[in-house]
Amino acid sequence: MANITKKVSWSSRGDDRGERTPLLNGAEDSKLNRQLSGGGIFHIGRLSTVDLEEEITPEEDIIRSRPKEIPHNEKLLSLKYESLDYDNSENQLFLEEERRMSQMGFRCLEITRWVICGLIGLLTGLIACLIDIAVENLAGLKYFAVKQNIEKFTELGGLSLSLILWAVLNSAFVMVGAIIVAFFEPIAAGSGIPQIKCYLNGVKVPRVVRLKTLVVKVFGVICSVAGGLAVGKEGPMIHSGAVVAAGVSQGRSTSLKKDFKMFEYFRRDTEKRDFVSAGAAAGVSAAFGAPVGGVLFSLEEGASFWNQLLTWRIFFASMVSSFTLNFFLSIYHQKPGELSSPGLINFGRFDSDSVQYNLYEIPLFIIMGALGGMLGALFNLLNYWLTIFRIRYIHRPCLQVMEAMLVAAVTATVSFAMIYFSTECQPLGPDHTEEYPLQLFCADGEYNAMATAFFNTPERSVRSLFHNPPGTYNPMTLGVFTLAYFLLAVWTYGLTVSAGVFIPSLLIGAAWGRLFGILLSFITTSKSIWADPGKYALIGAAAQLGGIVRMTLSLTVILVEATGNVTYGFPIMLVLMTAKIVGDYFVEGLYDIHIKLQSVPFLHWEAPPTSHWLTAREVMSSQVTCFNRIEKVGTIVDVLSNTSTNHNGFPVVTHVTEIDEPSKLCGLVLRSQLIVLLKHKVFVERAFSRFSQRKLQLKDFRDAYPRFPPIQSIHVSQDERECMMDLTEFMNPTPYTVPQETSLPRVFKLFRALGLRHLVVVDNENRVVGLVTRKDLARYHLGKDGLEELQLAQT
Amino acid sequence: MANITKKVSWSSRGDDRGERTPLLNGAEDSKLNRQLSGGGIFHIGRLSTVDLEEEITPEEDIIRSRPKEIPHNEKLLSLKYESLDYDNSENQLFLEEERRMSQMGFRCLEITRWVICGLIGLLTGLIACLIDIAVENLAGLKYFAVKQNIEKFTELGGLSLSLILWAVLNSAFVMVGAIIVAFFEPIAAGSGIPQIKCYLNGVKVPRVVRLKTLVVKVFGVICSVAGGLAVGKEGPMIHSGAVVAAGVSQGRSTSLKKDFKMFEYFRRDTEKRDFVSAGAAAGVSAAFGAPVGGVLFSLEEGASFWNQLLTWRIFFASMVSSFTLNFFLSIYHQKPGELSSPGLINFGRFDSDSVQYNLYEIPLFIIMGALGGMLGALFNLLNYWLTIFRIRYIHRPCLQVMEAMLVAAVTATVSFAMIYFSTECQPLGPDHTEEYPLQLFCADGEYNAMATAFFNTPERSVRSLFHNPPGTYNPMTLGVFTLAYFLLAVWTYGLTVSAGVFIPSLLIGAAWGRLFGILLSFITTSKSIWADPGKYALIGAAAQLGGIVRMTLSLTVILVEATGNVTYGFPIMLVLMTAKIVGDYFVEGLYDIHIKLQSVPFLHWEAPPTSHWLTAREVMSSQVTCFNRIEKVGTIVDVLSNTSTNHNGFPVVTHVTEIDEPSKLCGLVLRSQLIVLLKHKVFVERAFSRFSQRKLQLKDFRDAYPRFPPIQSIHVSQDERECMMDLTEFMNPTPYTVPQETSLPRVFKLFRALGLRHLVVVDNENRVVGLVTRKDLARYHLGKDGLEELQLAQT
Repeated sequence: MANITKKVSWSSRGDDRGERTPLLNGAEDSKLNRQLSGGGIFHIGRLSTVDLEEEITPEEDIIRSRPKEIPHNEKLLSLKYESLDYDNSENQLFLEEERRMSQMGFRCLEITRWVICGLIGLLTGLIACLIDIAVENLAGLKYFAVKQNIEKFTELGGLSLSLILWAVLNSAFVMVGAIIVAFFEPIAAGSGIPQIKCYLNGVKVPRVVRLKTLVVKVFGVICSVAGGLAVGKEGPMIHSGAVVAAGVSQGRSTSLKKDFKMFEYFRRDTEKRDFVSAGAAAGVSAAFGAPVGGVLFSLEEGASFWNQLLTWRIFFASMVSSFTLNFFLSIYHQKPGELSSPGLINFGRFDSDSVQYNLYEIPLFIIMGALGGMLGALFNLLNYWLTIFRIRYIHRPCLQVMEAMLVAAVTATVSFAMIYFSTECQPLGPDHTEEYPLQLFCADGEYNAMATAFFNTPERSVRSLFHNPPGTYNPMTLGVFTLAYFLLAVWTYGLTVSAGVFIPSLLIGAAWGRLFGILLSFITTSKSIWADPGKYALIGAAAQLGGIVRMTLSLTVILVEATGNVTYGFPIMLVLMTAKIVGDYFVEGLYDIHIKLQSVPFLHWEAPPTSHWLTAREVMSSQVTCFNRIEKVGTIVDVLSNTSTNHNGFPVVTHVTEIDEPSKLCGLVLRSQLIVLLKHKVFVERAFSRFSQRKLQLKDFRDAYPRFPPIQSIHVSQDERECMMDLTEFMNPTPYTVPQETSLPRVFKLFRALGLRHLVVVDNENRVVGLVTRKDLARYHLGKDGLEELQLAQT
Repeated sequence: MANITKKVSWSSRGDDRGERTPLLNGAEDSKLNRQLSGGGIFHIGRLSTVDLEEEITPEEDIIRSRPKEIPHNEKLLSLKYESLDYDNSENQLFLEEERRMSQMGFRCLEITRWVICGLIGLLTGLIACLIDIAVENLAGLKYFAVKQNIEKFTELGGLSLSLILWAVLNSAFVMVGAIIVAFFEPIAAGSGIPQIKCYLNGVKVPRVVRLKTLVVKVFGVICSVAGGLAVGKEGPMIHSGAVVAAGVSQGRSTSLKKDFKMFEYFRRDTEKRDFVSAGAAAGVSAAFGAPVGGVLFSLEEGASFWNQLLTWRIFFASMVSSFTLNFFLSIYHQKPGELSSPGLINFGRFDSDSVQYNLYEIPLFIIMGALGGMLGALFNLLNYWLTIFRIRYIHRPCLQVMEAMLVAAVTATVSFAMIYFSTECQPLGPDHTEEYPLQLFCADGEYNAMATAFFNTPERSVRSLFHNPPGTYNPMTLGVFTLAYFLLAVWTYGLTVSAGVFIPSLLIGAAWGRLFGILLSFITTSKSIWADPGKYALIGAAAQLGGIVRMTLSLTVILVEATGNVTYGFPIMLVLMTAKIVGDYFVEGLYDIHIKLQSVPFLHWEAPPTSHWLTAREVMSSQVTCFNRIEKVGTIVDVLSNTSTNHNGFPVVTHVTEIDEPSKLCGLVLRSQLIVLLKHKVFVERAFSRFSQRKLQLKDFRDAYPRFPPIQSIHVSQDERECMMDLTEFMNPTPYTVPQETSLPRVFKLFRALGLRHLVVVDNENRVVGLVTRKDLARYHLGKDGLEELQLAQT
């Protein structure tokens, strides 16, 4: 029998530019033999007047657009990221199972989905509760110790000892947090939101939804918040919720080697993704007490195909999560049944009377939005440079831990200095809103104003800025605080600790927003109108957060739900929109920057607008490794073992005799499926003796999911290599295809709407001519000068 | 040159069942030669144990499941509904235009889209404003006249004259409203929400987004609300917003024959749909003051592909709409700049103290949700029977007008009787919350309690029920009111007037909810806990509305935004979920019932779960009318003129000589495109002399959109019939295709995710073997006994 498996041809990529990173081996899906005219970057803008018929000759353009410096990482697409299979492989096994299932069976499945979503919400809520209580107590202990110390030394002198105590305590907490992250699970660093965005987008970020990641994340965030860093505990909740969802929905833990034999139907990427969306939503919901905001977050950042039933399930998970947190916290606070703290952060109730806004305030809000956009862009830019620096110089775990400890110590020092040099005193209010009032050099019955901002968890500081009565802060204090905290937050984000950026952003914004409000009341004569600087603090917080993360719809709802008052819905929207527009003018959002710096092949919502020039023929990988419907085991093993290609999807073609002619497509088989087949030795001695082939079930595939063994671990004897394998039952017989002339936007739409991993390009005769994968599409993006093509590299 | 155009074969459909409606001519997309084994209804549940290889023999099942009565309309799919083209026809003309456009051009387009969305919001807000002010004044006049009259006759006796005056006034208003709807634009009847749902789903409901519809809708709703019917003005706002959007985005009015030469790029179904989503959202936003709720409504009820940028634009339109209404109403109410009424309905501010709820109240809320679900199901069922009756007996416009007048008179009579026989008096509050307090037989300084509910616009009644202090209503009054209003509302929905069902639902629910709250305080001893029956009124309103319309996510947000307080978010969610689950057990939601009764080929979110049995081969229409790439004009005219087929999409195939062999697919051309080509006489004398063919531009297609002339209006001479037409430039060269073995769910997913109208089914050689259209997919739905197949009919 003729073996028509196509070998990948290794044409060199014509590296005419010295600075171009050479394409390394290991491309997923034969991304190696590019035929795109001109290769690199070319300007569509310049080509727009060229007639369709003319050939594109972008040589000149390439020369002109040659970058002046070594390209940064964000001009690359990493090949190390695999994709997820969000399109069901509807092979015979799958269809048989679906057909065997009765209507009642489907109803049970649906109920199971709801139960799982309930569980996800419950567990996420409990985790949020754990984090909240742990942080509360640890921070409480720390501030109690430091406060006692300060009070002792205020009179005796020698406050530097207090500073040292504070710095050491902070560094100790942060050290623990940084060590577990740096040495045990680096993926748990940061907020995890970019990683979850990627996961929902269809990129398999290694180890992102593992149990170990969850444990490290949770303890990491407790340590870093307790360690007094300029971080929040909200972002990590989203990641935690996603991990919980990925774990619960599979009914087993691969790490713990425990299989509950439950939920086996859901052991595939499509179903898992849906639950992970629910988990992320539940995380947002628990973090901010914002169930609707959680749903919108999941949809805005993740899912592309909006399915009504799925959305309701996500909503249910969010709801349960917020309720669980609320319920258990109410018990912990010894007010059982009083459901008043639905989220980790509680902005406090905005009184109905003070929240009125007037028409003439709207331009002011818009100005604040623009300011937030600019400050956000500055934040992102500084953090971007810092991250580049970190990627280059601080990549060893011990260095990372040391940097984190340094930041903790500096944070303590700055805070201490601020409090020390602040001479402003405030009388202790009758309601004692301050948790840890520091008297320091103030008179009895007064406390240091700066301490409300620095000697406190960031959540409490935000709340003070929103609600403390006018006159609590003086403008100078706020200005200095804003500057100091801004710089600290920039430095902190991207450290190897588990921490979020929401709360620091809100805090910075609230500070300058309140400052803005106070200054307004100075300028105008009638003080009563601007009576409430808390209102401006809220608007400032929204502007700053919007300027940094650039979400609009979900963030509006999150903030509205967190404040518990819809009156501000409209100004918050306006502010977020303005901040986004202004910020986007300068630089991308923080999460997008970090995704780019990771060189993730992320698919945006739409193809770049000027990409109609490109067709599937130019985008696809043109030499595809195909298998026969009945293929020799040896060939399969060889192809899979070829580490230089590392393909994941193989079109299956009908058996034709001539080798050079492309053959008709009849299916698509995945690497993971082949691995399972090889592992179970599903061979026959000769071709066409199908009956002797061992019968595999879907269960075998599900048991192996998601950690399919590498091909190297599977031993195939020389005799077995001569056997044949019948792929008919296991391949997907109806893969989506497009003709070669399909334009890139059309391919993109199909790919994105259906969550594809491989799209087969066929000619007029239904013969395989190419394969489009995520990386082929993600390579094109709109730069400053038109359409750019990213390089692929094995970073 | 051989003409290989396939003629549709007219095989009889084997009407073995007497009650089966015979398939009439005029099927879109050759839906005539069905080959599905067994044809009619078959039970998947019973087949689930049958092995895959066996042939299905559902004869027995058909006999057993023979319906006992004449099938209602909802067992049919109407062929009169065309589909919309939500998939861009990416032909050469289109691609050339896109490629000519620079990056700046795309940016301008994007800005234009935002501007249009702003305009949509602005105009929708203004319309809402107009409706509000008109209703306010007309109702005010009416109630003033009646009140004067009643006061006059209360002492003199002869109150029957007052009743007559009231009934006549009501009937007069309603008559005007009913006449313009029944005689000028019947599509403007009802709330319009089902129609907009269909439009966004991809069904072309005739005349639904025309200017005339808008005018009739707006004046109709003013008349019916002023006429005192049990209706709201909120539902029609959604329809109005959609019409505004469809009009504004096209930059012209076909009805007024006015073309502003603007926004020509948006003259196609894909773009128009996006704007209509925005318009619907703006409508919701203006109706309820709920911008986020509007966005969610659009997404939950309409769009399937969630695109971030689109969502933001929708959000922007919503925002502007609510703001515009708010702004102009504030001027009208002579409090300019005080932005306190963001929607048509204003639930009033719930005070922060009274809105607390406790854990032990949650089971009560769930019980109320279940109650709402049951009452909603009852409402829907009664209305369903009534609608069937109306379809059969009340289809002449004058009868419809008379029915509407009758309902108006009865509503007045019932209201009057209620007020007359009610002996309950309430002291006039110091704040005079009552707009039209009726003293009637009460002592001075008191007013009739029933009059607050009946002698008032429904919006005000809802607000009274939410906010009046405890003790305002006695249980008896509320019980009788609930019953009377429930029956009136059932009777009213479906009348030939323009009116919505939201407010009556809320009012019914608020009434029994408040009753529930009052009864609770009777049962328990500690009255203070249940102090606020307004809380229960709100929950009851949510339950009743949820039980009737069965929305969850968007409705939660709408209610939260309308109450201006997020504290109730969680219980409202719970209640809506419960109401939906309980209600769905009995009968579908009101809108879905009405969509079904219209026999609209509506595509739900997913294929029925047990439909994996079916493949594209069984679902598709198997004899497809194809054209050659270069086709004789006469053939095209003949095919298009064939009124019995009325196809809309034609695969274009490569020229082959043998007639019987299916030929290779090379494109897809639409009827509308062919009409334009014929109209512009884009012919060549002989085949292959392409250069003499007149050059058409996209503009010609856009000018003809959306009212393409019928083929009968285009005169083609005998000479011209002999000419050839080259379709290469105009056909979509890359239509989506699927192989014959693709399962129905997979076809469905592709169809739904991409908004397709035609999906070509090809064989292994890329030859056309069939065509799948919306109706082929919508025919399958899950009935009580498994998968059912609907009949197609020309109703």
